[in-house]
Amino acid sequence: MTTSPRWLTEPEQRAWRALQQFGAPLAAALNRQLLAESALSSADYQVLVVLTETEGGVLRAGELGRETGWEKSRLSHHLKRMEARGLVRRDECLTDGRGLLVRITPAGRQAIAEAAPGHVAAVRDLVIDALTPEQLRVLAEAGEAVGARLTAVNCGAADAEAADEGNNVSTSCRE
Amino acid sequence: MTTSPRWLTEPEQRAWRALQQFGAPLAAALNRQLLAESALSSADYQVLVVLTETEGGVLRAGELGRETGWEKSRLSHHLKRMEARGLVRRDECLTDGRGLLVRITPAGRQAIAEAAPGHVAAVRDLVIDALTPEQLRVLAEAGEAVGARLTAVNCGAADAEAADEGNNVSTSCRE
Repeated sequence: MTTSPRWLTEPEQRAWRALQQFGAPLAAALNRQLLAESALSSADYQVLVVLTETEGGVLRAGELGRETGWEKSRLSHHLKRMEARGLVRRDECLTDGRGLLVRITPAGRQAIAEAAPGHVAAVRDLVIDALTPEQLRVLAEAGEAVGARLTAVNCGAADAEAADEGNNVSTSCRE
Repeated sequence: MTTSPRWLTEPEQRAWRALQQFGAPLAAALNRQLLAESALSSADYQVLVVLTETEGGVLRAGELGRETGWEKSRLSHHLKRMEARGLVRRDECLTDGRGLLVRITPAGRQAIAEAAPGHVAAVRDLVIDALTPEQLRVLAEAGEAVGARLTAVNCGAADAEAADEGNNVSTSCRE
């Protein structure tokens, strides 16, 4: 891998640079909006929105990991803090050995309902209304293609990590 | 803003969800590759690559903030750690009052030269080779459009923050 790397061409480099705007810079701006106008951070919001879309507002921690794309330790720490603030509850799943169930609380539902209008307005302002429908369509396809690559690669990494730790639970691949 | 929000339509929602793959999930995968195969984190790499592309390998901290999209405090903490590891040097700019100059060191140049082939291979594997040239072209345009919105919004926020702190330096807008 260290001999003759295929460096990026000029158009590839331009795309690579540009798509980084969808990472840290966008996340920082949305987080700033949420903290200024609601009781939630961007990370809280991501977790709660996934839970509100499930049957009964409950999901396995592993599926939350897959939906948010966070590493296991980040997810675990963040859920602990959200539980302390009363936004979610974590329960062991008794019917099988496959780990924690995460459940949105009534306070969590109220917090996201209050935060949602301002957050959606910011998403529109910064992203959706800045792009054409055709650009949005291509973005959707491109994001899904990259997501599929990431899932494939992360599953390999999670398996390796689980093996290292001597356990057999992977946050984002099994089930 | 809290009355009748314009919720996202189904195609907008799909694009919004998909483009989040370019954020935390992609960053985590690239960071994992770098940490496994080099002496640098993804954040180190981002800083060093910007510096290697400038005349003399030196840049104002404010311009680095603009290039990375990081908030001022994150940038400052990260540069301090990189300086302690010998990857960059920070010097006060004596000719004017506009803050720190950040300079890549020979050790920084060597570290990024060693990390680059593996990092580019991962970028290709996860993103570039997973997309068509047409998708990359549209991604470039879309990322640049969102970047322009973010710059406009961040400049307003940075001005407000500078006013709050009683200073007149904004990391990402002036000069």
